[in-house]
Amino acid sequence: MQKINGTIATPKGFAADGNHCGLKYKNHDIAWLYSMTPAQAAGVFTTNQVKAASVTYTKEILLAGKLQAVVVNSGNANACTGDEGLKNTKAMAEVTAKKLQIAPDLVAVASTGIIGKPLPMEKVTAGIESLQKQGIADNFAKAILTTDTFTKNVVYQTEIDGHCITMAACGKGSGMIHPNMATMLGFITCDANISSLTLQQLLSELTEVTFNQITVDGDTSTNDMVLLLANGAAGGHEIKTKTLAYQKLKELLKTVMEDLAKMIAKDGEGATKLIEVTTSGACDDLIARMISKSVVGSPLVKTAIFGKDPNWGRILCAIGYSGSPVNPEEVTITLGDQIVYANGLPTVFDMQKMTAALAEDVIKIFVTLQQGNGQGKAWGCDLTYDYVKINALYHT
Amino acid sequence: MQKINGTIATPKGFAADGNHCGLKYKNHDIAWLYSMTPAQAAGVFTTNQVKAASVTYTKEILLAGKLQAVVVNSGNANACTGDEGLKNTKAMAEVTAKKLQIAPDLVAVASTGIIGKPLPMEKVTAGIESLQKQGIADNFAKAILTTDTFTKNVVYQTEIDGHCITMAACGKGSGMIHPNMATMLGFITCDANISSLTLQQLLSELTEVTFNQITVDGDTSTNDMVLLLANGAAGGHEIKTKTLAYQKLKELLKTVMEDLAKMIAKDGEGATKLIEVTTSGACDDLIARMISKSVVGSPLVKTAIFGKDPNWGRILCAIGYSGSPVNPEEVTITLGDQIVYANGLPTVFDMQKMTAALAEDVIKIFVTLQQGNGQGKAWGCDLTYDYVKINALYHT
Repeated sequence: MQKINGTIATPKGFAADGNHCGLKYKNHDIAWLYSMTPAQAAGVFTTNQVKAASVTYTKEILLAGKLQAVVVNSGNANACTGDEGLKNTKAMAEVTAKKLQIAPDLVAVASTGIIGKPLPMEKVTAGIESLQKQGIADNFAKAILTTDTFTKNVVYQTEIDGHCITMAACGKGSGMIHPNMATMLGFITCDANISSLTLQQLLSELTEVTFNQITVDGDTSTNDMVLLLANGAAGGHEIKTKTLAYQKLKELLKTVMEDLAKMIAKDGEGATKLIEVTTSGACDDLIARMISKSVVGSPLVKTAIFGKDPNWGRILCAIGYSGSPVNPEEVTITLGDQIVYANGLPTVFDMQKMTAALAEDVIKIFVTLQQGNGQGKAWGCDLTYDYVKINALYHT
Repeated sequence: MQKINGTIATPKGFAADGNHCGLKYKNHDIAWLYSMTPAQAAGVFTTNQVKAASVTYTKEILLAGKLQAVVVNSGNANACTGDEGLKNTKAMAEVTAKKLQIAPDLVAVASTGIIGKPLPMEKVTAGIESLQKQGIADNFAKAILTTDTFTKNVVYQTEIDGHCITMAACGKGSGMIHPNMATMLGFITCDANISSLTLQQLLSELTEVTFNQITVDGDTSTNDMVLLLANGAAGGHEIKTKTLAYQKLKELLKTVMEDLAKMIAKDGEGATKLIEVTTSGACDDLIARMISKSVVGSPLVKTAIFGKDPNWGRILCAIGYSGSPVNPEEVTITLGDQIVYANGLPTVFDMQKMTAALAEDVIKIFVTLQQGNGQGKAWGCDLTYDYVKINALYHT
């Protein structure tokens, strides 16, 4: 498996474009992703009971397991917009289908941005009509952003059964929800030959250990959506479960999803650092993930990392309230490559080395238990003045 | 029932004192609370699996249902300090018992402050020995503080069965946990005649609707403790359950606890405002409390209130991910006395009136559902630059 430069349209048979239609002041805000042939498709969606029209709509059309295009707008979430909102989402799919000359029920819709404002459909329609079948895929990555500070593309290749399989992901994050802008969106393309059922199983399973293990502020959005499309353009027989090909594809998908998840965590609102917490020696993987996520989500751990403080006490506390059974005497905490807490007591560590380690962009925290072989990671970011600024200064 | 000025020692037969012993640089840091006769007692403690020595110790001696004194230190949590820590907690009880000429197993111990540092017992012992049986009760309130910005006393009186019953509470909060300073501590005294079993039932039940409904940052401390002592000094027969006297005492206790809880929420680290969320029309009270706590705990709601932004979208989102079943179409949100969201859509409201309402010190949010008669409140504070500052600038 190797990482390559590229975009969401790098896998064979995919194209993408993005443009400005006026939902944002001047940045790109409308985009589509297109597969030359109908692709097998899978999706995961927000668990928030308050769902945007795009989530309701896309969940439903995805029941058939096929997509040929995804149309995305930023700047307006089209959430809490009633029946009008759902009508507008359908219209977005229809305009896209007409322009691409495909069936409307093959077009998924994703939206992100302000909540509670009707979509200005004239702008949106004109925007979709301005998109090109063979467009500039970089503009797709730009057009889906909100408070993000950089575009997020990941592309990997691997050989499966003699065919070169390419997989790409493109996403956006920032705050988990922000009525002006935000939501996590992720799009994954792949040219492997695989059924939608297998894709859905893989996506659901791997979401648990990747996207569901990142946290910026604990707020679950109304618009979260990750879509995975595989069009088989790379050739080869269908990849079935319980084969070596399946294992390789799973590894590829996990890497792509984890990379995108980390990029989103690192670009959390106001963040200056990526925090990675790895828990091992837990009773099972689920408990390890719960502990990792509890630590990475603690406001006090997040502010300590921002302040470059090796605050093992806050880490231990977050382990203690994670909801998982833990004996504090059997916890070992490693930060900046040094053990800071073990056997129920803090250790004496090299403060100069620690200060240097905490000045890095990526902070790794290891939690080791003595329960079993369970392990799990979680990713987050520090909590800074800028998080407060970004979220306090915005006015509805 | 009426509120009066006073301290934790205002109920008959109680005394308290506080002093400086050197755990903090110059503020008071050692204190005791004393009942002339052994009091019936009850307690609630942190649910964090990482518990300070004082929690382990006090939980155990409280099994007998009687306390005559509580000794408290701030500046050092005596948490994650191993066997030495437990020995030091016991020594605090013993020194206190000797000075007060009572049995050591009638002395509870509470600590708050830095985690992982051994208690300097010479200072602590000298400190306890400097305390007076008839001391200055105001100094008790001062000596238990950490990052709090004001002392927290609440005193109410009511007539029960022809006797004037006085109940007082004193507490501290600030950050839920902070390895330098913090933890929530609460002490409640009462001169009513009531058994420890009844007291424990009342305290546990009312903690659910008061202290467990406040949140500053969602971090549960290793040292949280609330103790309730009733010494019967006001006279009268024992107050039994299912009587009018019991109902009146319960109402008194609820008021005292709710007032203290609100003071603690208002004085959260860096806070400028108290936020009160009231949910009604829920399926049951538990669901109403869950929803209220989800809203008051949302970092995005907290930053919006700091920014004086009537951000109904963030409130609705937090309702949606509260873990309780909710139909967004049946939610009504009221903020600053104006309905901002109803029937699945935002409303048009008077922005000038709203701006004035959001400039107040106390912000009330009402969430109304159409499920049943369940209701519940929660209290918190805004999330400000100063929260980040207080928690990022401290160095271990």
